[in-house]
Amino acid sequence: MVDLNADLAEGFGRWELGDDAELLRVVTSANVACGFHAGDPGVIRRACHLAVEQGVAIGAQVGYRDLAGFGRRFIDIDPRELIDDLIYQIGALEGIAKVAGTEVTYVKPHGALYNAIVSHAEQAEAVITAVRQYNPELAVLGLAGASWLASAEAEGLRVFHEAFADRAYTPQGTLVSRREPGAVLHDPELIAARCVKLANGEPFEAIDGSLITVRADSICVHGDTEGAVRVAKSVRQQLVSAGITLTSFAPPREAVNRDALAAVR
Amino acid sequence: MVDLNADLAEGFGRWELGDDAELLRVVTSANVACGFHAGDPGVIRRACHLAVEQGVAIGAQVGYRDLAGFGRRFIDIDPRELIDDLIYQIGALEGIAKVAGTEVTYVKPHGALYNAIVSHAEQAEAVITAVRQYNPELAVLGLAGASWLASAEAEGLRVFHEAFADRAYTPQGTLVSRREPGAVLHDPELIAARCVKLANGEPFEAIDGSLITVRADSICVHGDTEGAVRVAKSVRQQLVSAGITLTSFAPPREAVNRDALAAVR
Amino acid sequence: MVDLNADLAEGFGRWELGDDAELLRVVTSANVACGFHAGDPGVIRRACHLAVEQGVAIGAQVGYRDLAGFGRRFIDIDPRELIDDLIYQIGALEGIAKVAGTEVTYVKPHGALYNAIVSHAEQAEAVITAVRQYNPELAVLGLAGASWLASAEAEGLRVFHEAFADRAYTPQGTLVSRREPGAVLHDPELIAARCVKLANGEPFEAIDGSLITVRADSICVHGDTEGAVRVAKSVRQQLVSAGITLTSFAPPREAVNRDALAAVR
Amino acid sequence: MVDLNADLAEGFGRWELGDDAELLRVVTSANVACGFHAGDPGVIRRACHLAVEQGVAIGAQVGYRDLAGFGRRFIDIDPRELIDDLIYQIGALEGIAKVAGTEVTYVKPHGALYNAIVSHAEQAEAVITAVRQYNPELAVLGLAGASWLASAEAEGLRVFHEAFADRAYTPQGTLVSRREPGAVLHDPELIAARCVKLANGEPFEAIDGSLITVRADSICVHGDTEGAVRVAKSVRQQLVSAGITLTSFAPPREAVNRDALAAVR
Repeated sequence: MVDLNADLAEGFGRWELGDDAELLRVVTSANVACGFHAGDPGVIRRACHLAVEQGVAIGAQVGYRDLAGFGRRFIDIDPRELIDDLIYQIGALEGIAKVAGTEVTYVKPHGALYNAIVSHAEQAEAVITAVRQYNPELAVLGLAGASWLASAEAEGLRVFHEAFADRAYTPQGTLVSRREPGAVLHDPELIAARCVKLANGEPFEAIDGSLITVRADSICVHGDTEGAVRVAKSVRQQLVSAGITLTSFAPPREAVNRDALAAVR
Repeated sequence: MVDLNADLAEGFGRWELGDDAELLRVVTSANVACGFHAGDPGVIRRACHLAVEQGVAIGAQVGYRDLAGFGRRFIDIDPRELIDDLIYQIGALEGIAKVAGTEVTYVKPHGALYNAIVSHAEQAEAVITAVRQYNPELAVLGLAGASWLASAEAEGLRVFHEAFADRAYTPQGTLVSRREPGAVLHDPELIAARCVKLANGEPFEAIDGSLITVRADSICVHGDTEGAVRVAKSVRQQLVSAGITLTSFAPPREAVNRDALAAVR
Repeated sequence: MVDLNADLAEGFGRWELGDDAELLRVVTSANVACGFHAGDPGVIRRACHLAVEQGVAIGAQVGYRDLAGFGRRFIDIDPRELIDDLIYQIGALEGIAKVAGTEVTYVKPHGALYNAIVSHAEQAEAVITAVRQYNPELAVLGLAGASWLASAEAEGLRVFHEAFADRAYTPQGTLVSRREPGAVLHDPELIAARCVKLANGEPFEAIDGSLITVRADSICVHGDTEGAVRVAKSVRQQLVSAGITLTSFAPPREAVNRDALAAVR
Repeated sequence: MVDLNADLAEGFGRWELGDDAELLRVVTSANVACGFHAGDPGVIRRACHLAVEQGVAIGAQVGYRDLAGFGRRFIDIDPRELIDDLIYQIGALEGIAKVAGTEVTYVKPHGALYNAIVSHAEQAEAVITAVRQYNPELAVLGLAGASWLASAEAEGLRVFHEAFADRAYTPQGTLVSRREPGAVLHDPELIAARCVKLANGEPFEAIDGSLITVRADSICVHGDTEGAVRVAKSVRQQLVSAGITLTSFAPPREAVNRDALAAVR
């Protein structure tokens, strides 16, 4: 049993990015951008409606306020301000999710924030605090093994660990930096086979050929290129073929708001 | 019995505007900016916390996405996009209000949007639709007598009409354009005396000296200058002296989230 | 003799739009976005460097400050503020063009501003004033026959008229609204044939089959889809085959800053 | 002989900050914000016109793209992108300065960028590269003694060092961190007296009472509060009383564009 997650609603106005409709046929959890680094209200809403149609859980893909940098540049923001920025984003997404007949069930930090909180204790604590203040029943999703997830768990949050379908791992079980050769896998068969091992908790090959095991409640697939969607589909098929159940780690409550949904459409 | 409302949280980052703490000692309803034309998450949060302390109701001061223009420039946005922009803003504010232990109880469009929907039927309908989709129990607050309020009422929303403490009226009961001489009143005594008449439903003098009556569930006071706060205080004192009860037209439910509130602070 | 122009540098950060490199092999004038509705400094700079390589003239594609709306929504901005916004944009582009070894030689308003100034006299005058204040030797490019071009000419600016390769015309020589059926042409052969007639000043068929003549110093081609680039290439080939010289209506001075260029790269 | 500089045009749209008109009666160099962290085109233009009237030199106060953070948060931007962002900003300001009849004569990084480049070699090099590419005759102004100024000088730029009128210094001649007690001076007399010593190259007291000497081509005064403007005026008066000539380190060429200026107004 495993979850598949992907980033969605990452366009902005005239600018499209990724094929949300196709990806939502693949994943069980959708990390929906919240407008600070990507995602205008219209593209967010379409993603939410499609997620409801496909029974996909919605998470808040929160990030730094940085449209020009797509949230990929570390910003040394005061952690107290970061808390408020995050609550704002989750609330905005929840407003739209509610109208689409569903709810936000988890939070996954994006881009540079995702990376920063692996080592930046104050920003990590800000993420945890924001979720606890907003709704302590929300889950959080982060890098498998990251210490901030342990902190979040200790503070009472439900935490889930993710692995990456197409990224090479070090013998220590951390991601190989994108700057290193071989950091990103491209062979769909290899990627899918590794995902099956990840889902089964079986060891797989690190970049040096040694065997490692990574705990993964969820596997992250990408969808920002045509090829990426193909890979994602292949991952799903192989997982299903291997008899692995695909299911969200944080499903929305049944039919959160079917009336509202019916009224809207 | 009447409500006093004012615009709050209209700063942005380094830029301050108005004295929220002082104004919240005066009003019973706070139109809190939602980030599209003013209001960063930090200033929104402070306003929400202060509103809770003072028992002031919180409304969503929604506007066009236009920080450079402060929401004061008409934007010919597709009404379907406007719906989504408004839901996003209300949701974002609600997220922060929830953390502050309260809730959003009404919506008041801001600036150019406020003016546009007096005559722009599609954008008016977008406002109504956004509120109905988000939460049909939210009230809406708008210009006394505006036809969009009648439409909103016909579509099931609770509507409230506002008058302006410091604006001159035409004999027809509409606002004198700011471009006309005498459009804005400055004498605190005169302003306060008129507010008492407004609250009592009594006729008062239009700009030509004729007597008019304006329905006002709420009176809007300003707070963006030091003088404005003084006038607002004077209005409140005169209303209280005249035995008029000041009360929000859309109070939050008692102690929406006192536990969360206690936990946060 | 005719000019071919297209919009360039319309991406923003992570978001790409159009194939600038390919389009610059086709056109003789590049309308480079200036950052208010599209175009971050990086994508602007790449477009300028490529334009220099291809000997293409650079114009300022100025627009409303509206990234979310891509400059396609009319904004009722104070004309005095519009003047300053336009000068800012032209200056910013010129700074980058200078570093790339060239200069801005014309201005072409974008999107909703392009359309607004056909009838909105104050905003049209703001465009003219901005160009005159910034540099009265800059040319302006606009809709063939638009009265603001006549005003600009009367005020001493060099004006150029453009026709659209893929748009249907009314019998009066104005564009058929995009909301009408048949407003956009799709047949590459038909489009190219019509462009030859436009370039030769010959009559061509309006949407009702009647013959019209449109003065066109420049023909606008689009490049925001793969198909559009193919059409643009076909237009260029047909024009060349027909013996028509393709040349910019406002070429940069020879080797504006070759030293700087050499130093940079 | 010394220069006095201050930050100007730091408002944005509805939001005002500082009293530009008053400050321009005090300083000889105006660091004009360029729109990325503060400064809309209108407030920039007013500052430029006022600077021309007062004969004050204009520098580009460049910063990170971060309106919400006022440029005070470090952003880990790719240095190549930073170069382009800086050129864009300088060009935009130059466009407006030109229309106001003057020119940009120097560059002073703002806020977090100002601080970052003291130690962040890549971003420091990006600043130097941007100035060299845009116009190697522009001067740069930075923290007295900062090593990036030495690099800039080695690469052929004219560099100028600034001290702060109201900041305490360590015995090593660096600024006491704002987080330390006593970091900011408030006594106008004390501040002015120290400025006289700075201007004369005489030693003054560091925070521990020891005497230090700081090279200062320019002294930075603040103007974002009413009190700050009073202090700035007092500094100017004391310097003049002490017989020190106040003059810009990078004056504009005489009457850069008086015709344009006359035409505009």
